[in-house]
Amino acid sequence: MSTVDKYFELVDQHQQKFIETLREVVAIPSVSSDASRRGEVVRMGEWLQARWEALGATCKRVDPGKQDLHGVELDLPPVILGQYGNDANKKTVLVYGHYDVQPALLEDGWDTDPFTLVEMADGRLVGRGSTDDKGPVLGWLLCAETHKQAGLDFPVNLKFCFEGMEESGSEGLDDIIVAEADKWFKGTDVVCISDNYWLGTSKPCLTHGLRGVSYFHLQIEGPGADLHSGVFGGTVHEPMIDLVHLLSTLVDPNGRIKVPGIYDQVMAETEEEQRSYEGLEFSHNALAGDLKRDIIIHSDERMTLKHRWRYPTLSIHGVEGAFYAPGDKTVIPARVRGKFSLRTVPNMEPARVAELVTQYLNAEFAKLGSKNVMKVIETHGGRWWYSSPNHPNFVAAARATERVYGVAPDLTREGGSIPVTLTFEENLGVNVLLLPMGAADDGAHSTNEKIDKRNYIQGIKLLGAYLHEIAVTDLTAATA
Amino acid sequence: MSTVDKYFELVDQHQQKFIETLREVVAIPSVSSDASRRGEVVRMGEWLQARWEALGATCKRVDPGKQDLHGVELDLPPVILGQYGNDANKKTVLVYGHYDVQPALLEDGWDTDPFTLVEMADGRLVGRGSTDDKGPVLGWLLCAETHKQAGLDFPVNLKFCFEGMEESGSEGLDDIIVAEADKWFKGTDVVCISDNYWLGTSKPCLTHGLRGVSYFHLQIEGPGADLHSGVFGGTVHEPMIDLVHLLSTLVDPNGRIKVPGIYDQVMAETEEEQRSYEGLEFSHNALAGDLKRDIIIHSDERMTLKHRWRYPTLSIHGVEGAFYAPGDKTVIPARVRGKFSLRTVPNMEPARVAELVTQYLNAEFAKLGSKNVMKVIETHGGRWWYSSPNHPNFVAAARATERVYGVAPDLTREGGSIPVTLTFEENLGVNVLLLPMGAADDGAHSTNEKIDKRNYIQGIKLLGAYLHEIAVTDLTAATA
Repeated sequence: MSTVDKYFELVDQHQQKFIETLREVVAIPSVSSDASRRGEVVRMGEWLQARWEALGATCKRVDPGKQDLHGVELDLPPVILGQYGNDANKKTVLVYGHYDVQPALLEDGWDTDPFTLVEMADGRLVGRGSTDDKGPVLGWLLCAETHKQAGLDFPVNLKFCFEGMEESGSEGLDDIIVAEADKWFKGTDVVCISDNYWLGTSKPCLTHGLRGVSYFHLQIEGPGADLHSGVFGGTVHEPMIDLVHLLSTLVDPNGRIKVPGIYDQVMAETEEEQRSYEGLEFSHNALAGDLKRDIIIHSDERMTLKHRWRYPTLSIHGVEGAFYAPGDKTVIPARVRGKFSLRTVPNMEPARVAELVTQYLNAEFAKLGSKNVMKVIETHGGRWWYSSPNHPNFVAAARATERVYGVAPDLTREGGSIPVTLTFEENLGVNVLLLPMGAADDGAHSTNEKIDKRNYIQGIKLLGAYLHEIAVTDLTAATA
Repeated sequence: MSTVDKYFELVDQHQQKFIETLREVVAIPSVSSDASRRGEVVRMGEWLQARWEALGATCKRVDPGKQDLHGVELDLPPVILGQYGNDANKKTVLVYGHYDVQPALLEDGWDTDPFTLVEMADGRLVGRGSTDDKGPVLGWLLCAETHKQAGLDFPVNLKFCFEGMEESGSEGLDDIIVAEADKWFKGTDVVCISDNYWLGTSKPCLTHGLRGVSYFHLQIEGPGADLHSGVFGGTVHEPMIDLVHLLSTLVDPNGRIKVPGIYDQVMAETEEEQRSYEGLEFSHNALAGDLKRDIIIHSDERMTLKHRWRYPTLSIHGVEGAFYAPGDKTVIPARVRGKFSLRTVPNMEPARVAELVTQYLNAEFAKLGSKNVMKVIETHGGRWWYSSPNHPNFVAAARATERVYGVAPDLTREGGSIPVTLTFEENLGVNVLLLPMGAADDGAHSTNEKIDKRNYIQGIKLLGAYLHEIAVTDLTAATA
């Protein structure tokens, strides 16, 4: 029996014990956005550090400093850096995960207490953090513990980076990655992040792309103070009227961006990419069900995925400075800011996007003939991330997936951003893989968050199998 | 010397005493929107009642019931009804005013404590409520007291209605007016309200029109919950994108309403109205100064006034349900409500306005091809008010103004609403006059609210002169 098969057998034997460990960590309410729970976040980090140290790992606790949370000064929770194994003949894999969770209250609509893991008859393990991201973070730990306890050779040197602020903007993390790139992270061959989800609920996937985001504030300044619409309506240029006209010129109701030049930089589709959409586990029926109303623009499922993954999109988020409360108020807001963002894709440059958007809005504003003052402010310009799925890191993960699940994984991209992905790639100069454990319906930030027992247990196998595959993979092989 | 001249002389002699009385009432912080100040509002009502009763008036305190103020249950402050004089040979004038005030804090930017009246060297009497509406409310009282103390015959029977909730929506008042129309208010010949302002700062005016307001919520419902723009942007119909398209179809940036049929019901201009714009004290220079930025649409001052007084206008107030806070949030709001309102003028019918707006938005929404659900909700449809400035009530007020100020008053309308005007007119079936005491720059709801000493003292004369003119006016004379 191979080491991997032996490992699989042990994981199956220890299923219940692994669920108990998940129960133990779900019970620590490490909500990073709640000042009153900051101590629990720290406790969760310390739990992880202690458990890895008990296994023989060398850990380094980095405290990123202070945070101002709605006027309360708090210590940021620690980033736990670790090194497990240091064999010059083995490859070194860096894994990232986060031990903080989203807020959760029973009265939000949970069926059970969110911080008590409940194993349902249908196989769901329900509890806050079960899938995002405590399950995957435990996966790496339980894999190493299982190997050690059974005397199995651990196939790689493992470095890890576990943070406690992911649900609150990863405050402080980037600086640490930059500072440790040539120190703690030195020698890393590949990075693996398990913090996203399958495209559907039955078929595993590897994720090789993320979109960037360019966020804009479109500000219109009119009078020195808010005005009474009875006195001034119809006699002055109203900032809100200018704003709705400008916002309506950005995108049509079918999602087509009207800013000239935006689509020019989009990477052309290759035949390989075309083929990759075949057989993906994705259906409009399921999507419409999740949305509670069929408001899907495209009739072809592939077009929906392409607009999620490979085309830029533009969304309008809201307006700052206008009347937003329930009820009626007859105000003419003096200064308003429309908030919108573009999701960007290869090969768009954030600076060029900002230039195109600003030029276009200046021209459209000039057409209005308004005496108000307009300004376009780019508040954020984060790049997309794209990796070839033919890189040996992905090939290794695909082989591991086939070994555990018996199917070739879907190759997916995601519409959102996981900024740490790009930070690792750019600062460490190595390939990064996104290897999800949970399924699309896990409800990561929702009520009744769960991970299916199958995904948890097979996921623990998957992470181990991946490390074994990396051990025997030539990472220098050319990417097709 | 006539009774009126004698009265004027006494007012001049008692200027300082009248300012002291204003100081006494400004010192009562009767802020109706502040639960912690509710006792002060009641104290102010009781002060008025006691003072009128000391003069011999019969008063009736009506408590309108309970109010829910942000979850705190409060007793509504009393409406003080009064009757001063009951001579079958005299006409009966009903006056209305309010004894509550807007909130005010020194840290809002006041130069002096808002609840301590300060007499400035330039003649301003600065303090919260000085002009809105404690000065005018005192005017009626001081007029009656002066007549009595000097043994001058009071020219009319005076009824009064002073409320303590005007700055908070006049909660409870309408029901009392309806209930007392044939009881306490029975026998009223004319109504006079002193609770608005001159068009400028030097020339007195009479006000004979107010616009109505029809308020709408334009609701777009999309998915069952807010969505992540990274995942769903560009693949689903976004409520905010539909909303900005629809809002932009309502009105152009120069204030022209694009809803078909809206201008069809607008009363034609007569030659008399044309003439009435000549010589009004109104300048774009002063207006632009008040606005802090010249955002005036029209080049002709008369057009600005016409769009304030006699044309319908449409303002966009804000959006409920979208992201409104500072900063960035990549949300696709699930359900949004755009808030807009039309100011309506003779002879528009609120029901017809709602019908036209709804029909138009339904048609425009159909053009978008969106799968979201749109609904137009009319939350308020208040009528305009218009009175002929040739009514004997106005003629009497014009003669009184000439007697005090030496000039014929401007005849103005206002762009906003004073709903109680219409309530009195409709329920009592008599003419209502708006006779302002303060000037355009008094800053009624602002920091450093003031009434000029001239306006206060001459205003006390004006209210008395008006009552004397009413006494000798044939109110049954045909209106030209």
